[in-house]
Amino acid sequence: MSDRRRIVILGGGFAGVYTARELLRRGRDRIDVHLVNRENYLVFQPMLPEVISGSIGIADTTIPIRRFVPGAQLHMRDVESVDLERREVICSPGFQPRHLVLPFDHLVVALGNVTDFRGMTGLAEHAMPLKTHGDALVLRNHVIHVLEEAESERDIGLRARLLTFVVAGGGFSGVEVIAELHDFVRRAARSYPRLRREKRRFILLHSRERILPEVDESLALYAQRLLRRRGIEIMLNARLQAATANHALLSDGTRLPTATLVATVPSHPNPVCESLALSRIRGRIVVDAFLRAQGSTNVWALGDCALVPLPHAKCPDESAFAPPTAQHAIREARVAASNILASDEGKPLTPFTFRGLGSLCALGHRKGVAQVMGLKLAGLPAWFLWRTVYWSKLPGAAAKLRVGLSWIVDLVLPPDIVQLRLGRSSGINHEHFEPGQPVFEQGDLGDRVYIVIRGRAAVERLIDGSAEAQTVAHLGAGQYFGEMALLNRAPRNATVRCIEAMDVLSIQKGEFTSLIANLDVLRTQFEQTARQRGDRPAPERDIPSPPATGRAGD
Amino acid sequence: MSDRRRIVILGGGFAGVYTARELLRRGRDRIDVHLVNRENYLVFQPMLPEVISGSIGIADTTIPIRRFVPGAQLHMRDVESVDLERREVICSPGFQPRHLVLPFDHLVVALGNVTDFRGMTGLAEHAMPLKTHGDALVLRNHVIHVLEEAESERDIGLRARLLTFVVAGGGFSGVEVIAELHDFVRRAARSYPRLRREKRRFILLHSRERILPEVDESLALYAQRLLRRRGIEIMLNARLQAATANHALLSDGTRLPTATLVATVPSHPNPVCESLALSRIRGRIVVDAFLRAQGSTNVWALGDCALVPLPHAKCPDESAFAPPTAQHAIREARVAASNILASDEGKPLTPFTFRGLGSLCALGHRKGVAQVMGLKLAGLPAWFLWRTVYWSKLPGAAAKLRVGLSWIVDLVLPPDIVQLRLGRSSGINHEHFEPGQPVFEQGDLGDRVYIVIRGRAAVERLIDGSAEAQTVAHLGAGQYFGEMALLNRAPRNATVRCIEAMDVLSIQKGEFTSLIANLDVLRTQFEQTARQRGDRPAPERDIPSPPATGRAGD
Repeated sequence: MSDRRRIVILGGGFAGVYTARELLRRGRDRIDVHLVNRENYLVFQPMLPEVISGSIGIADTTIPIRRFVPGAQLHMRDVESVDLERREVICSPGFQPRHLVLPFDHLVVALGNVTDFRGMTGLAEHAMPLKTHGDALVLRNHVIHVLEEAESERDIGLRARLLTFVVAGGGFSGVEVIAELHDFVRRAARSYPRLRREKRRFILLHSRERILPEVDESLALYAQRLLRRRGIEIMLNARLQAATANHALLSDGTRLPTATLVATVPSHPNPVCESLALSRIRGRIVVDAFLRAQGSTNVWALGDCALVPLPHAKCPDESAFAPPTAQHAIREARVAASNILASDEGKPLTPFTFRGLGSLCALGHRKGVAQVMGLKLAGLPAWFLWRTVYWSKLPGAAAKLRVGLSWIVDLVLPPDIVQLRLGRSSGINHEHFEPGQPVFEQGDLGDRVYIVIRGRAAVERLIDGSAEAQTVAHLGAGQYFGEMALLNRAPRNATVRCIEAMDVLSIQKGEFTSLIANLDVLRTQFEQTARQRGDRPAPERDIPSPPATGRAGD
Repeated sequence: MSDRRRIVILGGGFAGVYTARELLRRGRDRIDVHLVNRENYLVFQPMLPEVISGSIGIADTTIPIRRFVPGAQLHMRDVESVDLERREVICSPGFQPRHLVLPFDHLVVALGNVTDFRGMTGLAEHAMPLKTHGDALVLRNHVIHVLEEAESERDIGLRARLLTFVVAGGGFSGVEVIAELHDFVRRAARSYPRLRREKRRFILLHSRERILPEVDESLALYAQRLLRRRGIEIMLNARLQAATANHALLSDGTRLPTATLVATVPSHPNPVCESLALSRIRGRIVVDAFLRAQGSTNVWALGDCALVPLPHAKCPDESAFAPPTAQHAIREARVAASNILASDEGKPLTPFTFRGLGSLCALGHRKGVAQVMGLKLAGLPAWFLWRTVYWSKLPGAAAKLRVGLSWIVDLVLPPDIVQLRLGRSSGINHEHFEPGQPVFEQGDLGDRVYIVIRGRAAVERLIDGSAEAQTVAHLGAGQYFGEMALLNRAPRNATVRCIEAMDVLSIQKGEFTSLIANLDVLRTQFEQTARQRGDRPAPERDIPSPPATGRAGD
């Protein structure tokens, strides 16, 4: 056995990947570097919003880690746990159901932030995050799907809902997303004859007085005016409280009907950090000026999941710590790599002192705002600076070439409106409903079965000649509904309406059919319930089921 | 109301899209064209294999139908049924659970072929088709995943299995797929340090004496020699009989351990064709020389789902009908469009007389074979002809520009090895096992629950000091297993091995947990079984569970 030191890095963002690169550059002869990341690529986050609009190609923002850090051993796994005592990282299984165990001499925690909708009603079920490359692709596909449906749809209310796009969070990320969404829909709509003349709503929700807290007020106000002039509605002091499949609900009671809700706000350090026996403040791992976790000699933390002190800060508040940006992560990586090697050689460590270069925000349509080294820029010059700086920061020549070509092609071609499908979605989902909202309506096609996790619903039936529906039953936690239409292959024979905010588990027709065909206990139970429900005062044959159809295009 | 005629076209392949285009070109003033397709794009099939190798971009082969046929009304739906009497097409629901009904004066059936693994043991569960653009992306992602796992894996047998790629079907499609796979893995492996020196197997299965039945023997033999020289194994007279997650099984009993099985063979006309009251031969709709379905005046069929007679054929065998190629589909589309318009005006109809221009097959590495207008070409000239012809046939300038640029970029950059993820896969799957194959082994992590649909399995336990496992129970149809490890969060306490070919439904941990947490009847049942099984002679504490771990990279 050699006496090479094993360094395990958790996380493949800027912080992790640049630490690996720097370690190998300086110490290739005496260390082995293992990097654990769920994906085999690094995402260039600043350009993620451009993936939505297709102004760059789908894979242009992704850089294969193996190519960028060829000397590191990459493990495409999740981190399940870390044993600091035994100095081992336990990773999720691959093709075989066995854990992967990585022993380490030094551990580098660079797990970044994750979207965390916990505690926010209905957001996990119905809001779309924009954190990963996969999130960007899912959002792009969703928007194309919405445009396709809006083009075919005859129902005016539904069409209006499909054409309303809501983004929660007025920081850099939210502002860039609403700008790109607006751009994309405007350009794509040229290929949808009906939508061309149709009203479309774009709404940006922000919880404070003004958007873009990252820059000076004058720049933020410029951005607000610019976005509003394009028709984007900016709702200030507005807080997102809950979401359903059909609405965004604000804390002042406003209901915004929408089929597209993007939430950029709730970012938290990766939950794996919580499981480590290390001091944390607001979830972030506390490190010293040398990026070493408090009280440890061989555990280092950096990037968005670490609380990195800035020694030159004027006052001990938020700004006394490094903000979660790529420019800081890259500089932290250099310091961490050099300190890890120095600590093994008993040399003195270097403190982290970088203070940031500035901020850049793209506003679409060749406009932007920038605040760089004391200078403030707005409009075209800021946009130009944005493109120049971020293009030059793209890791690797391949990404630079691809993005450059995409930008040129984007000048001459309309945006791509192809809806990619990759595998099918899960057949078992969580959904959230608010009081008054129908889960389904009498006459609808039966496409899934619901199990109530919490909340309550009423079963309403339209009987014969009567104009008004009668409530025939109530449903609560642990009860299921919607099985009759599936078992009888008939339209819904009643409306189910939420009466107390309700979380449900929904099982798609295909999965439900597979389950009851093969699990006796389930089939027996469901058939029995269906029989009981069929024996109620209003049996199926008496119910005027409106045909489950809409007629298109005369 | 106008007296415009409504023409509904089913299918967005070459046949359907070109019919729409031709109809609108000639009769825009007097007809409305509706086109129903599951996707909003046309796929340029000839270049699909290049998507796998990444020598063209992910979306380069897709052409948005709205842009290519701007006058048509596109409905991104599935066809559920057609009522020829009432002249209505019923389409699947969109955002709302309601059917879409499209009335028609003329119906054009251009639904093409679909992959149909029915009746082939284990193929639906474990073989990958290559028919749609989605199939190509799934295969590409899978191959990258396999390379990643092979790079991390310590088990030699598993690594060999991961590095074996099997393609069934030696026609154009299968040959192009194995050539592109070979090319891609060879180039990608440069980024995987361990794999560079590792043996990789590429196997092409073909059921007859020689591959490429579409071209002359001399060209086919050239192709065979060329592929074999590269190290691709060609197994002739070999028939794929069954598949499991770990093996391809041939009819002569050979077992090929592989994690990647692509089956290009079983192509059948779209099942919707079966539901139409129209004459069919081997699934294909019988049409006259004017492309009108037998016995109908307003139903037309063309493309791969139609049996189109060639009047100049010399003998009344297979070759008396148009083969399923793009060049035929496009010519059929012109004839069908002209005849639909002529039939409404009482003008004489035109028969279909096109006889084909020839065949082109790419073999990777800038080699190919071609048989065009009596000429036979092989090697570089054929490859060059392939690129020239197909590039010029790409519908639309946008696709031509994108593919052209991709080919240029591909000369200088290594292939993309980014594994894209779009949504998560379904939590309930079908799996197939062959006798002797373990479903899981004692000590494995518990990741899912299984329900036996058909077949039998044995439960085997290693007890204390004994070296050999004892069979402690048998499982058959309707029984489930694997729940204990999930309920107790413990490793598998026994091995389950298939003893009679077995189909199972498997439910992933997450979905299983959701279901039993919310469905009382299920929780009760599973807990009860787990208790009974726990009370068996060999209780859990006595079982030496090897730790569920593998150790990596010392």
